[in-house]
Amino acid sequence: MPEKKTMPIRWGMIGGGRGSQIGSIHRSAALRDNTFELVAGAFDIDAARGRAFGIDLGLDEGRSYPDYRTLFAEEAERPDGIEAVSIATPNNTHFEICKASLEHGIHVVCEKPLCFTVAEAKELKALAEARGLIVGVTYGYAGHQMIEQARAMVKNGDLGEIRVVNLQFARGFHSAAVEEQNPSTRWRVDPKFAGPSYVLGDVGTHPLYLSEVILPHMNIKRLMCVRQSFVKSRAPLEDNAVTLMEYDNGAIANVWSSAVNAGSMHGQKIRIVGSRASIEWWDERPNQLSYEIQGEPVRILERGMDYLYPEARLDDRIGGGHPEGLFEAWGNLYRRFGLAINGNRGLAPEGIENLVFPSVDAGLEGVRWVENCVRSADAGGVWVDYE
Amino acid sequence: MPEKKTMPIRWGMIGGGRGSQIGSIHRSAALRDNTFELVAGAFDIDAARGRAFGIDLGLDEGRSYPDYRTLFAEEAERPDGIEAVSIATPNNTHFEICKASLEHGIHVVCEKPLCFTVAEAKELKALAEARGLIVGVTYGYAGHQMIEQARAMVKNGDLGEIRVVNLQFARGFHSAAVEEQNPSTRWRVDPKFAGPSYVLGDVGTHPLYLSEVILPHMNIKRLMCVRQSFVKSRAPLEDNAVTLMEYDNGAIANVWSSAVNAGSMHGQKIRIVGSRASIEWWDERPNQLSYEIQGEPVRILERGMDYLYPEARLDDRIGGGHPEGLFEAWGNLYRRFGLAINGNRGLAPEGIENLVFPSVDAGLEGVRWVENCVRSADAGGVWVDYE
Amino acid sequence: MPEKKTMPIRWGMIGGGRGSQIGSIHRSAALRDNTFELVAGAFDIDAARGRAFGIDLGLDEGRSYPDYRTLFAEEAERPDGIEAVSIATPNNTHFEICKASLEHGIHVVCEKPLCFTVAEAKELKALAEARGLIVGVTYGYAGHQMIEQARAMVKNGDLGEIRVVNLQFARGFHSAAVEEQNPSTRWRVDPKFAGPSYVLGDVGTHPLYLSEVILPHMNIKRLMCVRQSFVKSRAPLEDNAVTLMEYDNGAIANVWSSAVNAGSMHGQKIRIVGSRASIEWWDERPNQLSYEIQGEPVRILERGMDYLYPEARLDDRIGGGHPEGLFEAWGNLYRRFGLAINGNRGLAPEGIENLVFPSVDAGLEGVRWVENCVRSADAGGVWVDYE
Amino acid sequence: MPEKKTMPIRWGMIGGGRGSQIGSIHRSAALRDNTFELVAGAFDIDAARGRAFGIDLGLDEGRSYPDYRTLFAEEAERPDGIEAVSIATPNNTHFEICKASLEHGIHVVCEKPLCFTVAEAKELKALAEARGLIVGVTYGYAGHQMIEQARAMVKNGDLGEIRVVNLQFARGFHSAAVEEQNPSTRWRVDPKFAGPSYVLGDVGTHPLYLSEVILPHMNIKRLMCVRQSFVKSRAPLEDNAVTLMEYDNGAIANVWSSAVNAGSMHGQKIRIVGSRASIEWWDERPNQLSYEIQGEPVRILERGMDYLYPEARLDDRIGGGHPEGLFEAWGNLYRRFGLAINGNRGLAPEGIENLVFPSVDAGLEGVRWVENCVRSADAGGVWVDYE
Repeated sequence: MPEKKTMPIRWGMIGGGRGSQIGSIHRSAALRDNTFELVAGAFDIDAARGRAFGIDLGLDEGRSYPDYRTLFAEEAERPDGIEAVSIATPNNTHFEICKASLEHGIHVVCEKPLCFTVAEAKELKALAEARGLIVGVTYGYAGHQMIEQARAMVKNGDLGEIRVVNLQFARGFHSAAVEEQNPSTRWRVDPKFAGPSYVLGDVGTHPLYLSEVILPHMNIKRLMCVRQSFVKSRAPLEDNAVTLMEYDNGAIANVWSSAVNAGSMHGQKIRIVGSRASIEWWDERPNQLSYEIQGEPVRILERGMDYLYPEARLDDRIGGGHPEGLFEAWGNLYRRFGLAINGNRGLAPEGIENLVFPSVDAGLEGVRWVENCVRSADAGGVWVDYE
Repeated sequence: MPEKKTMPIRWGMIGGGRGSQIGSIHRSAALRDNTFELVAGAFDIDAARGRAFGIDLGLDEGRSYPDYRTLFAEEAERPDGIEAVSIATPNNTHFEICKASLEHGIHVVCEKPLCFTVAEAKELKALAEARGLIVGVTYGYAGHQMIEQARAMVKNGDLGEIRVVNLQFARGFHSAAVEEQNPSTRWRVDPKFAGPSYVLGDVGTHPLYLSEVILPHMNIKRLMCVRQSFVKSRAPLEDNAVTLMEYDNGAIANVWSSAVNAGSMHGQKIRIVGSRASIEWWDERPNQLSYEIQGEPVRILERGMDYLYPEARLDDRIGGGHPEGLFEAWGNLYRRFGLAINGNRGLAPEGIENLVFPSVDAGLEGVRWVENCVRSADAGGVWVDYE
Repeated sequence: MPEKKTMPIRWGMIGGGRGSQIGSIHRSAALRDNTFELVAGAFDIDAARGRAFGIDLGLDEGRSYPDYRTLFAEEAERPDGIEAVSIATPNNTHFEICKASLEHGIHVVCEKPLCFTVAEAKELKALAEARGLIVGVTYGYAGHQMIEQARAMVKNGDLGEIRVVNLQFARGFHSAAVEEQNPSTRWRVDPKFAGPSYVLGDVGTHPLYLSEVILPHMNIKRLMCVRQSFVKSRAPLEDNAVTLMEYDNGAIANVWSSAVNAGSMHGQKIRIVGSRASIEWWDERPNQLSYEIQGEPVRILERGMDYLYPEARLDDRIGGGHPEGLFEAWGNLYRRFGLAINGNRGLAPEGIENLVFPSVDAGLEGVRWVENCVRSADAGGVWVDYE
Repeated sequence: MPEKKTMPIRWGMIGGGRGSQIGSIHRSAALRDNTFELVAGAFDIDAARGRAFGIDLGLDEGRSYPDYRTLFAEEAERPDGIEAVSIATPNNTHFEICKASLEHGIHVVCEKPLCFTVAEAKELKALAEARGLIVGVTYGYAGHQMIEQARAMVKNGDLGEIRVVNLQFARGFHSAAVEEQNPSTRWRVDPKFAGPSYVLGDVGTHPLYLSEVILPHMNIKRLMCVRQSFVKSRAPLEDNAVTLMEYDNGAIANVWSSAVNAGSMHGQKIRIVGSRASIEWWDERPNQLSYEIQGEPVRILERGMDYLYPEARLDDRIGGGHPEGLFEAWGNLYRRFGLAINGNRGLAPEGIENLVFPSVDAGLEGVRWVENCVRSADAGGVWVDYE
């Protein structure tokens, strides 16, 4: 990997202020490889606190803004204004801030979900295309290198024809009504801030996006979903859901989204079953990929090894055996956002057209999937055509 | 465990002749603890071959019969005739042989499935009750001791209220159309011999029964099922199926039955999620049970250890650390069949009323579940009330 | 496997009476495949209790003997007297009973250790050879099928030249001075009954024998050993020991024998490192063997699969995926003892000359190894030539 | 963790230029938390290439030096000169560069090994103490948070009295003579550049240091070592070694250092056995720690969870479930180097006196251990008093 880009991208942040873990991850990822340079921000709903935080981060006083509107207005006027912005605010503000950013001609990296409705997502997509701007969505787990290996294996036919797709992101941390004691998690179960779902959107869309990366040739034809509020006070939002999907090639998928899988840490696992072989990946042991050819011993593939496909080596930071984790995955993603933005600016290296990253389409697909799941679930768990 | 029962039960076999792996397992299990004594048999559809096989096993020549009808007719007349019989014939003959046995006043141990329809199962149940006879069904995995531990943990409230039940028995051995080369597996995908389903009945009913053992207080309210024939020549029988179930207490279950889970050996796994903790068990590592209390480190319980519930120690054959396997599970089950038969004869020890074993009710439930699954699947995967 | 041998071997037992777990394992293994038939015994140091136990097991009253001397004297006179005997008595009696058996012309299966000194072992070996009798020693773990796979892999050069051998049998059950409360384990730390060592002989010789099976071409040249009595009351016997060994081909071995490996169940693990690949096996997951070719993904081999060497399929009782455990391992071993005895009687099938089983040589090697270890340890952990 | 330190430490690098993976890790770690700021460097033995590299990294042209002597001479004169330097050059230059740095009053972070002899290490230690300077040594694995948990558990008596310490760092990457094709690894087996050992120093000192962190109260009394050159051209340097050690409290340790453990990735594992419980950690799954209390189920502790000791939470960057890897471990270490340097400058927060980091003493201990091992090995594997 290049140690230094001659042109770091001028970058700002909205949200992700003091005490925000996700804000810290965004900065760690964006700054890691020197692709981005933090020059502006509006970090907090509390304007004074946000400005102080930005100054602590080393921003020029004048570029630590009280709110996102001011930020866009002023940065758009500067010759050295930000070229890209990341949004790490509550879900219900993503749409309006993304829209504002695009309207000001600024590339966007947005926390997932991109917005709450397909209509909104389509509006953002149209706007981005009209302005020729990049929209990235932080499905961070997609940055793990073994996901690229999985994608390459499917593409090269190692699995044969795909038959069964098992996805799960089933944590246990909200088995009890922890939000009653912990206000910072309360918004997740309030439709006003969280949107039409809790776990479907909050965790389920993660492995869904991974499946899109690995299985780009397959399209959902219909799905059915049931959702439950095991902690009753969370209704109408669900803390557990099961979604079945049928693809156009006849394959079937089973998605388990949960916050009440007691005792489980993350529980994000993917298994792809083909006519010849299966692969399985677990985000808590992300450096390994199980490759299971029918009739042969299970093989454990390891990150960083020569036997992997070149696509799985692109983001190597360190040799095999040394574990990488979520921070590298996010770093890889931000590096790709940077490549996409540079591609947009005519500055990216050749091969950029094969770049895989969660774009506005990924954001749209996540919202679409939640919408279809909710439509099915609210009708009693019936099959609905995927719209 | 007692080394010796004063009264081994006089026992015969139908089917399970030369070259039959399942016949060998039945004998190994029945004879292991001296509960049963093999004194008669009709081992093969080829009468001569069957008789020779029985004689090789050490039977009196006159009690190695050419067919099951002769066996029942003659044994029923002998003062020392068999008291119990095991049936290890193709699925489509189970009903008629079970029925004949009960009509001759002989206890039955039958391979799963007990029969093909709920109506048949109810007929056998009524007959058994009328004659005061035991019917055992060989859901062999239920004999693993950690299943008793799981049952005791649920009963004692260690998991809290049950919310999610994930069951799977998803093998990969039939990923390709192996039946084309291997006639001995061909009957499994022929409705005439296999009945209304392949994997639902053949593998899915196993973890289903385990869930009944562990969760006796919960009843299925409705279910939906989709099934696929990924190897097309298997249609109308499925080689993969997903079943969702809702219980009367609001819990939800997800059952994956498959013969095309490429690269997987058995893939029989159970996860029970409660409001306080989860447990997980995998039949390929049957001596361990994962116990996951939310907010605490995962604990790995081991067979044979003092910290287990007494119910999980009843069948101890050897100390913890030493692995036991499927043969011990089957042996434990046959021991329970023997206890039930002895209880029926007034010979069993106290406490027999708490004995848990797969009886005619388990056989009936398996058939009922398949019937409901097929009904749902054939209607397009709709929810059906559990009948 | 044959369901029935035309000629079960007439067999007796000494020791292993009521309440003895090891006695029960011997019987389970010997009777499992109908190779042996129990017709006589002297089961207990308490003559009356022993006789009652034998009768309960179904012996003729006259053949449930008060002591081993009477047993040998009377059985040797009967035309239908026992052909083989198993010894499951305390360690300090093994030598005299083995010797008596051989002197009476009876094949022996003896619990490990065969005796206490190399001199004794050589005497037994000479006696067995003079009389043309089989001596088997129950290193039960050697009956696990994946050990045969390991042996075949080494033989076929899959590992390249062997460089490092890591052996351990390191349990935790005696981390505390449990013998103070549990008299039945007290003899293990009493030199009078246990011999010159505790864990070296009691557990260390197990993986040592496995290494002899897997690496028949390698000979120990010198070794050094240190031993500790972490529970001080056990001195001079050790509850923990480390042995390093150098082989004649330049390879090195490291053996950890322990009863104080707190929290560990068995901890019997073997790793063989070659110039091309390594294999690793753990007796608590005995159906799997890890095969690790340098530069390739780790492969997990599974018992019962077609890709194994034929030697690893000889004892198949059930298909891959179904776990087998210690009882099958012992059963396999007793089947081999039976084959060896039948070979001795001219009744064994062709190929018997390749039969691998723990014979008097294995018994001798175990005793020799302990003797060398003790010699080194008692001299302060110095290197000693292997004698 | 603070997002921003008011005073980043002015920092330079020697070595670690273009194409150096280790150089990249140093920079990633030092810059991650804004503790250090890269302002100077002498990155390459090739002066022009080194200068160009530094400028690419964003250094002022005048502070990208042709060699380390110029760097120290000029930086020591500047009012804004570097306060600390990291050394990532070949092993044989560590001593002279460390010494030069200390003589110029500059704190040092040095790649391991600190130097080649105890005499040299003592000279550096004396110099650092005389000048009041910090010397850090990058035993990077010590930055994994679960190592702090292990240390706290031992300190709090969770394991009881320590009895057995098993350490290994046994990779397989050099099973073949890869250095013949790959010049960049050739220096490791050349005593001129690598010093008196290959694997003892290169890998063995890593788990040794971890054991010092976890078991600060225990001192090695004597040790013995054997070493082998399985690839013969590596002699006299070893590619495999076993070291046994006795501590002053009677505990025993077993250290396996290897580059020829075929098929193994890293193989860095630690097991500490106490009278009450054991712990086990593996650097390839660094977020988990196995906690095994005798007589209780094994517990799997997870990084980031509330049940850990506060010491194991100090470096939390992200919640439990999300895997962290080697980069975070290094980052944590550099943060501690920064704290130590700030403590030295009177700028560190309270509690600094409890800070644990690999200092000059750790560097000295590593060199001492290798020296003792080599002394024992070269005398034929005899026990030597630890000097």
